[in-house]
Amino acid sequence: MGIPDEQIFPHATGAAEKTVADHQEPQELVFYSGWRAWIALEEKGIPYQYKEVNPYKKEAHFLGKAFSELSGGICSNSLAAINPKGLVPAIEYKGKALYESLIICEFFEDAYPSYKPNLLPLDPFDRAIARIWLDHISKAVVPSFHRILQAQDVEKQAVAREELNEAFRKVAKEVKGPYFFGLEFSLVDVAIAPWITRDYIIEENRGYKRSDVSDVWVAYTEEVLKRDSVIKTISLKEHYAEIYGRYLRDEAQSEAAKAIRAGRVIP
Amino acid sequence: MGIPDEQIFPHATGAAEKTVADHQEPQELVFYSGWRAWIALEEKGIPYQYKEVNPYKKEAHFLGKAFSELSGGICSNSLAAINPKGLVPAIEYKGKALYESLIICEFFEDAYPSYKPNLLPLDPFDRAIARIWLDHISKAVVPSFHRILQAQDVEKQAVAREELNEAFRKVAKEVKGPYFFGLEFSLVDVAIAPWITRDYIIEENRGYKRSDVSDVWVAYTEEVLKRDSVIKTISLKEHYAEIYGRYLRDEAQSEAAKAIRAGRVIP
Repeated sequence: MGIPDEQIFPHATGAAEKTVADHQEPQELVFYSGWRAWIALEEKGIPYQYKEVNPYKKEAHFLGKAFSELSGGICSNSLAAINPKGLVPAIEYKGKALYESLIICEFFEDAYPSYKPNLLPLDPFDRAIARIWLDHISKAVVPSFHRILQAQDVEKQAVAREELNEAFRKVAKEVKGPYFFGLEFSLVDVAIAPWITRDYIIEENRGYKRSDVSDVWVAYTEEVLKRDSVIKTISLKEHYAEIYGRYLRDEAQSEAAKAIRAGRVIP
Repeated sequence: MGIPDEQIFPHATGAAEKTVADHQEPQELVFYSGWRAWIALEEKGIPYQYKEVNPYKKEAHFLGKAFSELSGGICSNSLAAINPKGLVPAIEYKGKALYESLIICEFFEDAYPSYKPNLLPLDPFDRAIARIWLDHISKAVVPSFHRILQAQDVEKQAVAREELNEAFRKVAKEVKGPYFFGLEFSLVDVAIAPWITRDYIIEENRGYKRSDVSDVWVAYTEEVLKRDSVIKTISLKEHYAEIYGRYLRDEAQSEAAKAIRAGRVIP
């Protein structure tokens, strides 16, 4: 939550529309929203049911008590309490809801150990390294991407652009190729993919160029964009135009947009 | 990194001094800094060697190439690259360094599965819920605590105080007692403990009162402060006075202090 992901839906179009159509059968795992979780599900082939909801419309189902009852039990009460303003959950698993894209992706690793590929290394130390890079993406890539989107002033755009380039460059320096950790597609690739698939927005509007980051970055982004799980979850460009127009004019009212404006942590 | 933890050392005093003295024998796990990692080590009884380093003095050992060579291999190169300004690592495991308190605590769970207690629930869904609360502590509790510490203006202090109270209150609402998840001490308790052990600073200087959060919070904080692993890692109050004086006057130059001042994510 808190990233543009939550507003990409309700209506998938293009390649994503077909993927949605293929996942209408009821399953114990229901997927509502979140690009990273969706890519992870497609990577692993976990059976899921796709349910479209409008993230702007806060449905009673997902709010406060109703939500807590829906989810049931101690854990889900915890979740209802922390649910920021009734955001649509990203998934429901056996009737219990979860948020937070990376936490959900780790949940898939824990709850579906037999579904491959493993998106986190099995070695404990390498797994910690993967988490360090996920942390870098959360703390450096995502806020910089938001700042450049929302910056109205040309000078501020330039500062944000260099910040984003540097955040991407740090990742690029460690890419083993074709993917971050080498031959295996991992959660690091999943986590950064949505900021690659949407970078045309800042290319067209904010002077961003992949080649300004580094040659390795250009090659890496091409590989990520060729990945099946990524292709299958992309909607048509027109689909995103309205959503990102609001960010580009700094009119967006998502929690993420407001946090960036206030100089706060994206919730 | 990025939280006051990194400046609590070099010299442990009081109960912490004895704990340090008890962990001088060489071990494959070397502990340098970080209150949460230390509490987790003490909880689990993992053998570790405590090495004191001065976090203000950036030693070549931990910087760039030297650091990368020290650590060896692909993963540690990654780490050297992301190492923000040569911060002291929190631990070294078989010669390879790791940062980030919560990532390290998760590493202990993965790398030492036979050491009890398990600080994360074993059930995948409950584990995800624990991570949601860890995320809340990172995104709401820690930045609010920093903001109230660094706020110079009385009105800003009041705003920060209410933010912090609310962040603590959300946690308190879900405390099963005596600990967050009930009888089992967990990573949620570990993660929040350093912001309980040091709350006297904001009580004495910023008008914070545990009882303003909630009665449950008062009871919960008392339980956390009675926990052996917490007691054994606390230095004398005088020890912290100089460090926190710099935060209270907003003169601190740590990455965390600078980030809060600039309205940025704590790195």
